[in-house]
Amino acid sequence: MDKVRIGIIGVGNMGKSHTEYLVKNQVSHAELTAIVDTDPSRLDWVRNNYGSSNIQLFDNLDAFYASKAFDAVIVATPHYNHPEAAIEAFSHGYHVLVEKPAGVYTRQVREMNEAAAKSGKAFGIMFNQRTNPLYQKLRDLVTSGELGEVRRTNWIITNWYRSQSYYDSGGWRATWAGEGGGVLINQDPHQLDLWQWTADMMPKRVRAFCGFGKYRNIEVEDDVTAYVEYENGATGLFVTTTGEAPGTNRYEVSGDNGKIVIENDQLTFWRLRTPEPQFNREWKNGFGQPECWKCEIPVVGAPGPQHKGITQNFVNHILNGTPLLAPGEEGIKGLTLSNAMHLSSWTDDWVNLPINEDLYYEKLQERINSSTFKKETKELQMDVKGTH
Amino acid sequence: MDKVRIGIIGVGNMGKSHTEYLVKNQVSHAELTAIVDTDPSRLDWVRNNYGSSNIQLFDNLDAFYASKAFDAVIVATPHYNHPEAAIEAFSHGYHVLVEKPAGVYTRQVREMNEAAAKSGKAFGIMFNQRTNPLYQKLRDLVTSGELGEVRRTNWIITNWYRSQSYYDSGGWRATWAGEGGGVLINQDPHQLDLWQWTADMMPKRVRAFCGFGKYRNIEVEDDVTAYVEYENGATGLFVTTTGEAPGTNRYEVSGDNGKIVIENDQLTFWRLRTPEPQFNREWKNGFGQPECWKCEIPVVGAPGPQHKGITQNFVNHILNGTPLLAPGEEGIKGLTLSNAMHLSSWTDDWVNLPINEDLYYEKLQERINSSTFKKETKELQMDVKGTH
Repeated sequence: MDKVRIGIIGVGNMGKSHTEYLVKNQVSHAELTAIVDTDPSRLDWVRNNYGSSNIQLFDNLDAFYASKAFDAVIVATPHYNHPEAAIEAFSHGYHVLVEKPAGVYTRQVREMNEAAAKSGKAFGIMFNQRTNPLYQKLRDLVTSGELGEVRRTNWIITNWYRSQSYYDSGGWRATWAGEGGGVLINQDPHQLDLWQWTADMMPKRVRAFCGFGKYRNIEVEDDVTAYVEYENGATGLFVTTTGEAPGTNRYEVSGDNGKIVIENDQLTFWRLRTPEPQFNREWKNGFGQPECWKCEIPVVGAPGPQHKGITQNFVNHILNGTPLLAPGEEGIKGLTLSNAMHLSSWTDDWVNLPINEDLYYEKLQERINSSTFKKETKELQMDVKGTH
Repeated sequence: MDKVRIGIIGVGNMGKSHTEYLVKNQVSHAELTAIVDTDPSRLDWVRNNYGSSNIQLFDNLDAFYASKAFDAVIVATPHYNHPEAAIEAFSHGYHVLVEKPAGVYTRQVREMNEAAAKSGKAFGIMFNQRTNPLYQKLRDLVTSGELGEVRRTNWIITNWYRSQSYYDSGGWRATWAGEGGGVLINQDPHQLDLWQWTADMMPKRVRAFCGFGKYRNIEVEDDVTAYVEYENGATGLFVTTTGEAPGTNRYEVSGDNGKIVIENDQLTFWRLRTPEPQFNREWKNGFGQPECWKCEIPVVGAPGPQHKGITQNFVNHILNGTPLLAPGEEGIKGLTLSNAMHLSSWTDDWVNLPINEDLYYEKLQERINSSTFKKETKELQMDVKGTH
């Protein structure tokens, strides 16, 4: 096999984006051969824009799979459907690249991971931000030991401004039944993933404070402050909202050897000449602190190849065994954090990880079933360039 | 009266600092006329350094008060003693400028405030950071309405590095009996005061997570993350530690009209051209956010006159009725936040404000009584220049 034939499941906002770069041959050794969507207008969009391409179009999954026109699928359906669609693809023997989030509740995502393992097929997730050299460098500085043991991970990511008009653009948006959450499930999956990926550890417990419909007429969370504790004693914060402008995106990780801050697309390492624990053991003169160097760390090529980079890596993995940058099984990590933050707010209590997946599912269903939320919606065709 | 004669109660680290600038006549219309301290070596320090000055020295409070050599006192005794010493001074009919913190638990501070009110004398507190034009400007931008309604107040103040050697320099340091707390009571009183002063509001409830002796061999807190909620729905964070280097001092306040950040001794106002609530009402096109201007706000003269500025203001208040920059009665606010953070950690629960002052006192006594903490101490004469 010298190329991977790709089928796309769902050609909404993200599916269209994947279609565009694949049709333009921006992923080498990949060919877009099939698209399935139950919405005829979306298939019309493909016909109108890429009618001359050899993409087979399907309005149902049975025909799509019967075609055998592809080797791998990209799942770009609504959030809730990701695990179900992926599991079906695995059952048909296909490699799967799933859009983020991995799903809406961890139980379904665990089942997806089990299906992937059983199938033996390639399984990736569209964590395109893992291609950003800024976060790769941070992970490098942590995992290589340059920063020393991590002590604090504070991410303030409040620049996800969304107006009421955005929420009103689709009736499914920002509802428990439609999306399964708000800013955590829709805007933050990348940051929740990068938070654990760059620190190279998951918290052991979470205490979160969510505001539901605090800034907008929606039923899900649009403001979150979450505090976490790690096994090694480190602590962390994750602060996010869609209600503030201009907001902030500042991620600070401190460790035994200093601190690293990513802000304004720059990474700075304040590096201690002597690791703090050693300084503390040796210093005998009261006031005093380790000498600190402000180090500008070279980061080349940000923000990286993003979506097409993940797809390229997925294709290379299938063809050449290149390690996956974002293995699909890891999608459960960020979702666990997201679910834990909801659950902690709902129970007004600590949530230990791994979370009780059945309890989360039950409490989510309660919210779906008791929802009386009716929005006046106005369908808008939105440009997702610049979103992730 | 054309000058205020000042007596200093306690000539330890801070009392010496007040002595120095008063002897050098750096506060106009003020004269240092008396000092009392029960430690003879401290009085020797005054004799050796300022023997030629006309300062009367006393080794007991009875003689100090009998001298009637002053019009006002500065209380610079250990933390616990501040309210008791101030109450005694009011009972003798003197004006009082008390060092920070106002006290260690709010019950004693409330009693001090009541004594002050009853006395009718001037009552100030050494919140010297209120003289810093940076924080004055922030308060100005909030109280004048420039920022609009406050939505979030996040202060990361983790640059209070203290080694074990510092804690070992005095047996009373960082013990429940000696100081009544750690980083919150010793290092952070200014920030806790400025936090509420600049935002011009107190939280209504607090949920805090303290690490006690996390980084150092001490029994009190050396690491704190506190989440707060305000009456108007705003939230806030206060993150502090003595265990990190180089640490961070970054205070961000966001509101309806943008956000203000103080970091690296600079204040920046990201100002929205249209207030966010108005933009949200008027915007009809899905994605989109208010136009934002990065405004450099002039701040002249930072860090301001600090301690001598507070003393000058106190003197001017007595002589001319100049309003106090830091009225003594306001010392209870920051202490309430500090006590609430302890209490929330001890009870692993929310604490509503005003706190239950008797419960706090009881829980503090439990810690004092059950303390088995013995430190190997090594008396160090420390230079407090550069501390606050």
